[in-house]
Amino acid sequence: MEERSVEAGEGETVSNKQVVLRDYVNGFPREDNMEVRRKEMKLRVPQGSNAVVVKNLYLSCDPYMRLLMTPNLLNRLLPSYTPDSPITGSGVAKIVDSGNPEFKVGDIVYGTTGWEEYSLITNPQGLFKIQHTDVPLSYYTGILGMPGLTAYAGFYEVCSPKKGEYVFVSAASGAVGQLVGQFAKLMGCYVVGSAGSKEKVDLLKSKFGFDDAFNYKEECDLNAALKRYFPQGIDIYFENVGGKTLDAVLLNMRVRGRIAVCGMISQYNLDPPDGITNLMHIVYGRVRIEGFSVSDYVDQYSKFLDFMLPHIREGKIVYVEDIAEGLESGPFALVGLFSGCNVGKQVVLVARE
Amino acid sequence: MEERSVEAGEGETVSNKQVVLRDYVNGFPREDNMEVRRKEMKLRVPQGSNAVVVKNLYLSCDPYMRLLMTPNLLNRLLPSYTPDSPITGSGVAKIVDSGNPEFKVGDIVYGTTGWEEYSLITNPQGLFKIQHTDVPLSYYTGILGMPGLTAYAGFYEVCSPKKGEYVFVSAASGAVGQLVGQFAKLMGCYVVGSAGSKEKVDLLKSKFGFDDAFNYKEECDLNAALKRYFPQGIDIYFENVGGKTLDAVLLNMRVRGRIAVCGMISQYNLDPPDGITNLMHIVYGRVRIEGFSVSDYVDQYSKFLDFMLPHIREGKIVYVEDIAEGLESGPFALVGLFSGCNVGKQVVLVARE
Repeated sequence: MEERSVEAGEGETVSNKQVVLRDYVNGFPREDNMEVRRKEMKLRVPQGSNAVVVKNLYLSCDPYMRLLMTPNLLNRLLPSYTPDSPITGSGVAKIVDSGNPEFKVGDIVYGTTGWEEYSLITNPQGLFKIQHTDVPLSYYTGILGMPGLTAYAGFYEVCSPKKGEYVFVSAASGAVGQLVGQFAKLMGCYVVGSAGSKEKVDLLKSKFGFDDAFNYKEECDLNAALKRYFPQGIDIYFENVGGKTLDAVLLNMRVRGRIAVCGMISQYNLDPPDGITNLMHIVYGRVRIEGFSVSDYVDQYSKFLDFMLPHIREGKIVYVEDIAEGLESGPFALVGLFSGCNVGKQVVLVARE
Repeated sequence: MEERSVEAGEGETVSNKQVVLRDYVNGFPREDNMEVRRKEMKLRVPQGSNAVVVKNLYLSCDPYMRLLMTPNLLNRLLPSYTPDSPITGSGVAKIVDSGNPEFKVGDIVYGTTGWEEYSLITNPQGLFKIQHTDVPLSYYTGILGMPGLTAYAGFYEVCSPKKGEYVFVSAASGAVGQLVGQFAKLMGCYVVGSAGSKEKVDLLKSKFGFDDAFNYKEECDLNAALKRYFPQGIDIYFENVGGKTLDAVLLNMRVRGRIAVCGMISQYNLDPPDGITNLMHIVYGRVRIEGFSVSDYVDQYSKFLDFMLPHIREGKIVYVEDIAEGLESGPFALVGLFSGCNVGKQVVLVARE
């Protein structure tokens, strides 16, 4: 057995700040569905355990987290949150105590952690050790983390893209969408994005290289908008929003088009969700709609990193983050995803190191 | 050039009985949307043309024909019908005059023809010459025709079935569904069908070998019914009906399940169609929904025949037809598809030979 190592001064007990879910959520989540409170915690792993204690640095705000605030909704992928306990999500953290030979104190890791200053992670097999620290550490919650791999697998694997195809991305300036657009351009596709503000639309065109973009809030007829931007129709739709946008897209898909369903953020707070009325068009156009989850592509993570890192270092793929400072700002930042307050990937900075 | 041959007595002019579309249809089609009338026709192909004249024997009633009664709906696959002209569909016919070296008088063919006693087919390339006449000729409108190939390609190609999987088929006693169920049993799947009467449910279990079957009209909660028949969930759904059935199925799909969308007969007469509210579940379960059309699989027709004929001759695949006698009964038979009057494949017998 390796000797257990503890960072100097980190063996003590701290008053650990946490973001706790008050109770299960109906409808749109509100800041006061969560509470910031403190709980005593010893910064040591239990004697003889395989666990690690981490200091959380960056926490990721992701739309799927809303689904964990309702019981049993995502139980095929993830267990729901437990009321009166800290919520969890992916994040970047530093090992401060380790009972696990794979991790030593000071290592920077990326994986599922708690929304709190320090977390005891009893099952550290799911953590990745971060090797490349010449890029911002926060990138591992976004472009180099779960959203990045989601965009990569969703576009290259699920969409089966070909050069010259017509690609539409919704929530296009978000954590995943901004990457899908850039991947589509690298592939030689024509790509149009939709987003919810002029600022985001400008970003899509000026920063991410989308061929065109529009503000869906300013379009009273989404079908007409899509016909304007895609007079030839859509080969690939990367679906992040669902609802009325999906229904309009179905009217505009080309023959043998593909819809990769990453998420449907517009629907997570609706009960019942919007009814989709144009599904018959998938028969007329022989269209494939495929739901996917990044959890099925984790084995591609190192291939993905090998692809992304050079592109990032050479400035060929860029990334916009929206960083909220301090764990206290976490609930506001998370809830803001559902009204589109974030511009780019929403991150919560808990500590710089 | 081959000599043009004409069957004795068939060179004359006849008073040709036709089923004509009166005008485009809204909502449920009615018998009186069509009219049976007569029109003079010369049973000879125009001098120097490549056409054939056929005597129609069996005409196929297919749900997609409703979509051709509304302008531009299916224009990605087929042109709509023209009011005041005979409707068209697939059928079995006998060549009575030919300007085409591929077809000679007396040949029995299968392909697109008019709903009339005799048709001039100016583009006979789409006709298949029937070689195997030891099976009923009407089979070429069903089990050995477009519905058969639809079931074959839809199940074996689109559904990617594996032994032991759980398969659900709607409109299961119909022209396509009864075959999908039998294919699923040949593959070693567990298969349940839904249909709209006790007679059909009995047929599914006693004649087609479905493991179980239910009458959807007697289930006030389709989700509960599916949970009863598929406590483990559904791997493959062969979709013929759409609407509420699809919405309930989405709640019961297993991880990486597949939905092959052949048609949505429950929706063809609704404007707007039913809203589908459970599409988010395709993300949770990583489900694929794929629309397909038999027109993309025509090159598999001879492989399909090689597979089907021995199974039919050995009684390993059976087929139930509902044969309406006489062209006059065509409108009633066709309209009856949409209220489920037919038991098995609906055929119109125009002439026995």
